[in-house]
Amino acid sequence: MREVSQAATAAVLVIGDEILSGRTQDVNLATIARFLNPLGIDLLEARVVPDIESEIVAAINALRGRYTYVFTTGGIGPTHDDITTDAIASAFGVAVEYDEIAMTILAARYAPGEFNERRRRMARIPHGASLIRNAVSAAPGFQIENVFVMAGVPRIMEAMLDDIRPRLEPGVPVISRSLRTNLPEGRIAASLESVQKAHPELRIGSYPFFAAPASGGGSGTVLVVRGRNKMDVDLAAEEIIGIAAALGDTAVPEKSN
Amino acid sequence: MREVSQAATAAVLVIGDEILSGRTQDVNLATIARFLNPLGIDLLEARVVPDIESEIVAAINALRGRYTYVFTTGGIGPTHDDITTDAIASAFGVAVEYDEIAMTILAARYAPGEFNERRRRMARIPHGASLIRNAVSAAPGFQIENVFVMAGVPRIMEAMLDDIRPRLEPGVPVISRSLRTNLPEGRIAASLESVQKAHPELRIGSYPFFAAPASGGGSGTVLVVRGRNKMDVDLAAEEIIGIAAALGDTAVPEKSN
Repeated sequence: MREVSQAATAAVLVIGDEILSGRTQDVNLATIARFLNPLGIDLLEARVVPDIESEIVAAINALRGRYTYVFTTGGIGPTHDDITTDAIASAFGVAVEYDEIAMTILAARYAPGEFNERRRRMARIPHGASLIRNAVSAAPGFQIENVFVMAGVPRIMEAMLDDIRPRLEPGVPVISRSLRTNLPEGRIAASLESVQKAHPELRIGSYPFFAAPASGGGSGTVLVVRGRNKMDVDLAAEEIIGIAAALGDTAVPEKSN
Repeated sequence: MREVSQAATAAVLVIGDEILSGRTQDVNLATIARFLNPLGIDLLEARVVPDIESEIVAAINALRGRYTYVFTTGGIGPTHDDITTDAIASAFGVAVEYDEIAMTILAARYAPGEFNERRRRMARIPHGASLIRNAVSAAPGFQIENVFVMAGVPRIMEAMLDDIRPRLEPGVPVISRSLRTNLPEGRIAASLESVQKAHPELRIGSYPFFAAPASGGGSGTVLVVRGRNKMDVDLAAEEIIGIAAALGDTAVPEKSN
């Protein structure tokens, strides 16, 4: 028998009014998800909260106790609505301090006289936190215990993930196979359930698609098999290919996450 | 003195492994946010949970007690991973039943012999719920008390919002003005904080942008003023325009959400 996976888990906390007003389309959640997949860390929850300290504190304290890692995005810039640092410190019950290294990094970034009080605020981190560096903006994020606090700007956040990767304990990656068929979900559903029941260790997802009429139309289903054991995943995928054939269609591989 | 707004509030619950694996980029949250803005309903939180019944139940019960409305997306199709209906029923402590109208709508959709057991499952709704119709897929969502359960496919979800709109109690819409300046956040931050302090009834957001080098580069800040009183919003926006001018730049309107 194969070992039961003791996978590390993660949650994402997206912080910012702009996501909840519809002004900004979040893309960081999907980026973090795809970053965690090969590390074998299971992303199990995400939340989006506004720029309100009590909401951030409550969410952080709910998530950090429950998951191995928590990743936050947004709210660490120089303006009045950037309250994430203080909220995280409050959640951990620690003070916020100016970090000497962060001060040095930031001071080097600005022309003489331009490193004003507001920009200095970006060097403030909670007591006991360590910096998360990024080459794009210089302004650091920080890690405190199992919480990683990152910028909201996608390009900056991605650079921070590079700095975070070595700090995470990798596990057995989830292997994923995606199969595309022209069969509608309703025709394949019963057989698919049998495959899922035969493989309780896998998670089999079924996602209908409807191509835009402009692109020639066409619809069908993408079936995604996810698991930590390649043989199991492959076996279930082959069963799905067989089911599609038995129903007079095909199920062909497509790129998978 | 103007009345304190007693705005209705809302939360979104996105249900589906595919969002947390990074396979699918959620767009429904932003669509719902933009749908709620003109109705004057404040979207205050969003969560994403996997296709695990206990997680859906816990999130629904946390959110439905706290917000005026809860909108869910995903998990109401015909396959084994579509467990939202049962999870919602479980959260409300009610049974799931085949709905006669839903059966009629769905039966009409399929060719003779094609309305199989799995497709019939899409006619199951929790006891006491009312249908949410949509013309795109025919398969209905449902409303139970203050929870609106919708499909995950964006085009279908949008059609369901049309059916939901008349059921919501509209409030005073939030007015939003967005101003774009080439000034970096760090130069405008101190003045901006003064504007926010002078207008505690408004929410002023500051969002840096970094245009792709390919498109000519350029960076700056978009400032978003949000509030329910147009005079207040306009006044703060004019103050920001004045600040940008005093700093030797401009702040020009851009499309706002």
